[in-house]
Amino acid sequence: MQYDMKLTLSEVHSLAKRLLLAQGFNERHANAIANTVTAAERDECRHHGLFRIPFYVNAFRAGQASGDAEPTVTKLAPSIIKVDAHHGFSPLALEVADLPLAELAKETGIAAVAINNALSVSALWPEVERLAEKGLVGFAFVAASPYVAPAGGTKPLYGTNPMAFSWPREGHEPLVFDQASSASARGEIQVRLRDGRQLEEGWAVGPDGKPTLDPATALAGAQLPFGGVKGAAIAMMVELLAGPLVGDLLSFEAGEKDVANTGAPCGGELIIAIDPVRCIENGNRAAQLAHGEMLFSKILEQEGTRLPSDRRYQARKRTAVEGVSVPKVLYEQLQEFSTGEFSGKRFAYEGDDLIKGTAEQKG
Amino acid sequence: MQYDMKLTLSEVHSLAKRLLLAQGFNERHANAIANTVTAAERDECRHHGLFRIPFYVNAFRAGQASGDAEPTVTKLAPSIIKVDAHHGFSPLALEVADLPLAELAKETGIAAVAINNALSVSALWPEVERLAEKGLVGFAFVAASPYVAPAGGTKPLYGTNPMAFSWPREGHEPLVFDQASSASARGEIQVRLRDGRQLEEGWAVGPDGKPTLDPATALAGAQLPFGGVKGAAIAMMVELLAGPLVGDLLSFEAGEKDVANTGAPCGGELIIAIDPVRCIENGNRAAQLAHGEMLFSKILEQEGTRLPSDRRYQARKRTAVEGVSVPKVLYEQLQEFSTGEFSGKRFAYEGDDLIKGTAEQKG
Repeated sequence: MQYDMKLTLSEVHSLAKRLLLAQGFNERHANAIANTVTAAERDECRHHGLFRIPFYVNAFRAGQASGDAEPTVTKLAPSIIKVDAHHGFSPLALEVADLPLAELAKETGIAAVAINNALSVSALWPEVERLAEKGLVGFAFVAASPYVAPAGGTKPLYGTNPMAFSWPREGHEPLVFDQASSASARGEIQVRLRDGRQLEEGWAVGPDGKPTLDPATALAGAQLPFGGVKGAAIAMMVELLAGPLVGDLLSFEAGEKDVANTGAPCGGELIIAIDPVRCIENGNRAAQLAHGEMLFSKILEQEGTRLPSDRRYQARKRTAVEGVSVPKVLYEQLQEFSTGEFSGKRFAYEGDDLIKGTAEQKG
Repeated sequence: MQYDMKLTLSEVHSLAKRLLLAQGFNERHANAIANTVTAAERDECRHHGLFRIPFYVNAFRAGQASGDAEPTVTKLAPSIIKVDAHHGFSPLALEVADLPLAELAKETGIAAVAINNALSVSALWPEVERLAEKGLVGFAFVAASPYVAPAGGTKPLYGTNPMAFSWPREGHEPLVFDQASSASARGEIQVRLRDGRQLEEGWAVGPDGKPTLDPATALAGAQLPFGGVKGAAIAMMVELLAGPLVGDLLSFEAGEKDVANTGAPCGGELIIAIDPVRCIENGNRAAQLAHGEMLFSKILEQEGTRLPSDRRYQARKRTAVEGVSVPKVLYEQLQEFSTGEFSGKRFAYEGDDLIKGTAEQKG
């Protein structure tokens, strides 16, 4: 694997935006997706960086994603907002939702946004990190294509169903985690397939329902939730929150609707924001944040520990100076998208060369 | 082990209430705790049933728990309520919080209650089940004494930090889970100590930081989160929500304050309630619940699956007819509490005979 292209973050953004515009995305969508892709490259979460451009393009080309739908905001209740993405990709809907949600949480103490009809192929940490930067606690839940078996079962039903959480810090980037409810990322199984490496125990079962360490068998079977029954309960919760709660699709329904098999399912997302200072009586925000810091200090004073988002923030410092490395094979494939001319070649999202150069997402 | 006392649920309630009144708890606290204890016995969650009476009594006797503090309700923000338990046990505070929280969630779509200064030794499913019975989605988070190591660490810092979730169902008891963030219940380690059985891998490390299968070594060391780094992230989230967010103690602080080592830590709890019908535009509650049922059907059509709360509900049907079995040794020990005369014997909460007859909590 060669990381032989060096790009600055600004070059990543320009490249992503240029390709998306050339494909027909409008300015606002191209910009929002480029922001998301750049943030992922910046934090070295390459699964969600330039590697994702073909996912956006494929779904657009297949007619499943709108490139110009403007998200609409509706207030459903005093503390609930709905943002309908109208079958556009989620980054713009999430940018549109951000400020109204934050303002509402500050007004009422706790608020939620139901995102509907959004194609989601990005990580969740950007939306919760944004909330924490405004001093809020954030939660996000999204369901996706059916890959993961329920507790005790062996057939795919849940998405990898990530949930993200953020906590604001004073003078430090927010505490953030963003984790799939599956034992492993699907991309990690794809990477091991490519590299001819076995899986870890507990990651997957084959189509026969038996545990497997073979990546191809796993991809044809079902992934397993992390942490057994408890992780499966989290996966089920996420499925309910991002689906029926917000009036959107369950993972298996989203999978059925992705008729072109673009790997860019359309569905819902629930984001909750809490203003911590509204949860205490004395209104002492500084003391409240210092209390959180006390926990983080206690964690970090133990050898071998780190906070969930630390690796991302370290990468962020590094890439601001050094730029990012992009695999040459990916860079060249992306040139396919630099004009409106479409070669007709469809970029598969599984087991493809594009997986080259991806790294496990860093929460 | 002999389950040789058979009690009806009404007898369980009378017994619990009588003992608590004899010890000096007032009518309202005795009744609320008896409700909680009876609900646990009814659902065969014996860790939280009559087995817990000594915990309540010990903390009261030690002067750490109030037996007559009336919880006070304050509105902190349009969607946030605070219930201060004033160092009483949580069951009364939770009963007091229930209706105002439910009403607020129905009014604003999403609401939260910050419970403060509550001694908590009960399960979380009763409070979220109550919310779901009113048609709401519920979440509850509580931190406790420090038993669990953070990700990568080996020293106790987090509580077993349960979180609970509920989803309303039409014509069926709510979907509920209530699970510790630790790999195993602490009680299960105590039971294995008593029975001379080894632990499972991944449950605990000893004081030397090395993995151990020995119950005594584990109790002297640290429990581990479920599901590795991801479960540890959940544990950390619960710690932040039940502590700094609501302006209450972190687990290690609560542990330090439990000077009499009663195992009944005083701290906070966060409960969030969402009215699902306020999260959708068309207001079709029946269709929304049917959508949830579609998920449950898809889960249950796979062989080997069950829903998280099914075992409790099966037990509930059974005990309504057959009553519950109470170990004779426990029943006899409880007679110690039947008068205000205190024998002076303190019931330890670890490795005690009282553990006899406990069963793993059924979520």
